[in-house]
Amino acid sequence: MKDLGASCPVPFGRYDRIVLGHGSGGRLTANLIRDLFMPALGGEILSRLEDQAVCPVDLPAGARLAFTTDSFVVRPIFFPGGDIGSLAIHGTVNDLAVGGARPLLMSAAFILEEGLPLEELARIAASMRAACDRSGVQLVTGDTKVVDRGKGDKVFITTSGIGVVQPGVSLSISSARAGDRLLVSGPVGDHGIAILSVREGLEFETQLVSDSAPLADLTRVMLEACPSIACMRDPTRGGLSSALNEMAAASKVGVKLQETAIPIRPSVVAACEVLGLDPLYVACEGRLVAAVGEADAERLLELVRSHPLGRDAALIGRVVEDHPGIVTLLSRAGGERVVSLLSGEQLPRIC
Amino acid sequence: MKDLGASCPVPFGRYDRIVLGHGSGGRLTANLIRDLFMPALGGEILSRLEDQAVCPVDLPAGARLAFTTDSFVVRPIFFPGGDIGSLAIHGTVNDLAVGGARPLLMSAAFILEEGLPLEELARIAASMRAACDRSGVQLVTGDTKVVDRGKGDKVFITTSGIGVVQPGVSLSISSARAGDRLLVSGPVGDHGIAILSVREGLEFETQLVSDSAPLADLTRVMLEACPSIACMRDPTRGGLSSALNEMAAASKVGVKLQETAIPIRPSVVAACEVLGLDPLYVACEGRLVAAVGEADAERLLELVRSHPLGRDAALIGRVVEDHPGIVTLLSRAGGERVVSLLSGEQLPRIC
Repeated sequence: MKDLGASCPVPFGRYDRIVLGHGSGGRLTANLIRDLFMPALGGEILSRLEDQAVCPVDLPAGARLAFTTDSFVVRPIFFPGGDIGSLAIHGTVNDLAVGGARPLLMSAAFILEEGLPLEELARIAASMRAACDRSGVQLVTGDTKVVDRGKGDKVFITTSGIGVVQPGVSLSISSARAGDRLLVSGPVGDHGIAILSVREGLEFETQLVSDSAPLADLTRVMLEACPSIACMRDPTRGGLSSALNEMAAASKVGVKLQETAIPIRPSVVAACEVLGLDPLYVACEGRLVAAVGEADAERLLELVRSHPLGRDAALIGRVVEDHPGIVTLLSRAGGERVVSLLSGEQLPRIC
Repeated sequence: MKDLGASCPVPFGRYDRIVLGHGSGGRLTANLIRDLFMPALGGEILSRLEDQAVCPVDLPAGARLAFTTDSFVVRPIFFPGGDIGSLAIHGTVNDLAVGGARPLLMSAAFILEEGLPLEELARIAASMRAACDRSGVQLVTGDTKVVDRGKGDKVFITTSGIGVVQPGVSLSISSARAGDRLLVSGPVGDHGIAILSVREGLEFETQLVSDSAPLADLTRVMLEACPSIACMRDPTRGGLSSALNEMAAASKVGVKLQETAIPIRPSVVAACEVLGLDPLYVACEGRLVAAVGEADAERLLELVRSHPLGRDAALIGRVVEDHPGIVTLLSRAGGERVVSLLSGEQLPRIC
């Protein structure tokens, strides 16, 4: 077979869809990397095409590495405010950021279903590059596998990330302390409802857009201003409720939320009513919740509100000694109820 | 729903198969992690259940990080000599090892299909743990997603790995030099044929077993004895042929192989004849090929043969100035033919 792709009028040789051969490790794989992934994603290290990236990393004495991974299986793969590519970069960047790390290096592994249009894959790759640039990270290594039609779902992406945690920085979900205030960086539930509105074909007066965004700059600003912050989490799958339940359980503290203080867009409230969902369980992909000392709380709120990704930040409750491991909500009507960990599945394949 | 799993007579609560709720990020996900993944995989860092692992890493001045990722979609998930779990650990360990790195930290991200028996997942997790222990790496972070029935294929695993490359060590597939001898650490094609024999229900006189194994100790021994080794690769997808074609292209050299020198088990030769395959294109998962200086070649061969994973090592050819980018084979009969990069797909989902 002649070497396809280089001088063909169609963008990716004679193929416009993924075939099993694109996962062979042979010529078709090489062409896919050369003609699609490299133009979109290739930096200096990735372009070496070694089986591993070897990178100089400045790790000062006492600094530690942060390492994280996430698979993304979101359906549909394109949605208002993003796609599976940008989501896969932001999600992993955010897991590093809320650990107090500065994200540096990323990997991306693709599981492609036979039949995926190459044009869609190219859009996803371009979106990943933009997300990397916005997040200040370098994609340095990757992998591509192909599964037969009906054994995958268009594309799954697994990203892993490496970051550096400076000496003295130590964040953990087990470090919330009674007396801390809880700060959320913006309205919750946008991502989940944006996905569902596409999936269910719902239309609302204003288009709902995912909040998918990289939080590393926001966490950097927060930690520089207030190095004593000890506990952050980004509420993704399972929403704010899961993040706070995990925090309460790990820190052996109680959490008391005030319903009226939690920022939720009216369109998200409306969609949740239509769909029978509780917005506290709906995923965000560009928000964080932090437990911060009472003395710093108001100052930090102002700071977060001055950041483009924190304009609608709010203080939504307190960490308490009572009922360790349990999250309660003081409702609009004045009653108090337990906000438990989600039992089953509310929204499959939201990320 | 009551908290399942802790005191139930069946191993994983009332579920014996994966349901969508296991990917919710809520209680079922937490139970799966607590009852299945932690008992098998949990080390000190993983057990913290943060969204990121924060690890002290000793990175001497001048040392660099190696970083790699691979998705594994092998079918069937259990095969003679291994399973998707051990394969996913060995594969990523090997990509670090052939880059001259000492593998240290691993991540694992699971994409589970609704309906996967939990008993199978538990076996896979146990196998991953054994492979980590054998490889000297720590699994420190992970992720679990669930896709609906018919949108995946039992289980896909993406592993990423971090290793340390000591100062002075620099390996690259672009560093083979004319005059180098080519050393392969053992018989080629075992893994691919072991998979195919299960898939096709073939029976042979002797059972074919995958060569899946971690190469980090072998590469350490080789590099300590011969720090001038500049080029190694593990021939996985696409087999020995793809690895050498990539080396020839990247190093702008030619490769001349001698067919009679290449170790291939008689059972693999026989299976390839039945299946119409060329063993040079069949995957290994525990072999490496290295380009080594003429002066060191014989000494290194003896050393590799004294290692448990290199007993059948052989010198199989030479790097030459002629025909850069092209691999040729001097056949048993005395003729010379080009061994080109595989065009399409010979063996889908072999790893």
